[in-house]
Amino acid sequence: MLVLITYDVNTETADGKRRLRKVAKQCMNYGQRVQNSVFECVMDEAKCKEVEAILVKLIDKNKDSLRFYYLGNHYKSKVQHVGAKPSFDVEGPLIV
Amino acid sequence: MLVLITYDVNTETADGKRRLRKVAKQCMNYGQRVQNSVFECVMDEAKCKEVEAILVKLIDKNKDSLRFYYLGNHYKSKVQHVGAKPSFDVEGPLIV
Repeated sequence: MLVLITYDVNTETADGKRRLRKVAKQCMNYGQRVQNSVFECVMDEAKCKEVEAILVKLIDKNKDSLRFYYLGNHYKSKVQHVGAKPSFDVEGPLIV
Repeated sequence: MLVLITYDVNTETADGKRRLRKVAKQCMNYGQRVQNSVFECVMDEAKCKEVEAILVKLIDKNKDSLRFYYLGNHYKSKVQHVGAKPSFDVEGPLIV
């Protein structure tokens, strides 16, 4: 299934910047960066629980926000992209 | 239906900053800001086409990225939130 992970990490402090790097790094292990703080991850239920548990531990729940969107298995028609592709070090094809 | 709008606007220039403000302002007219550049909009097909057309015109397609995710009508179980709520001027309830 496709799981969309989006986050806002408060980077006002050095600690926040560190959290942001860690969150991004973990997300990269599970999916495809499509925007700066938006990842698309095609994974099963077990992997999904795994990354959720990791990210929940990394963030500061009082300062950061983490959202998961479950788009199921038939997701290709549910995603539309306009404009530039991310300039990050991405692996695998983008869903366009 | 729930439509998720996510964007990355390149703000390296004053023009980019202006585009970002305009995109955010338009998104606010159609939905709920849940993260800095993530909006959840509950709307029908017509409104969806309307906001898509507006946003596509506002962005610079060579520099900015815009993504739409269509989560259908039964979306409440498809969204999970962890951590802080957005500190923006939000209207209406968040989907938690």
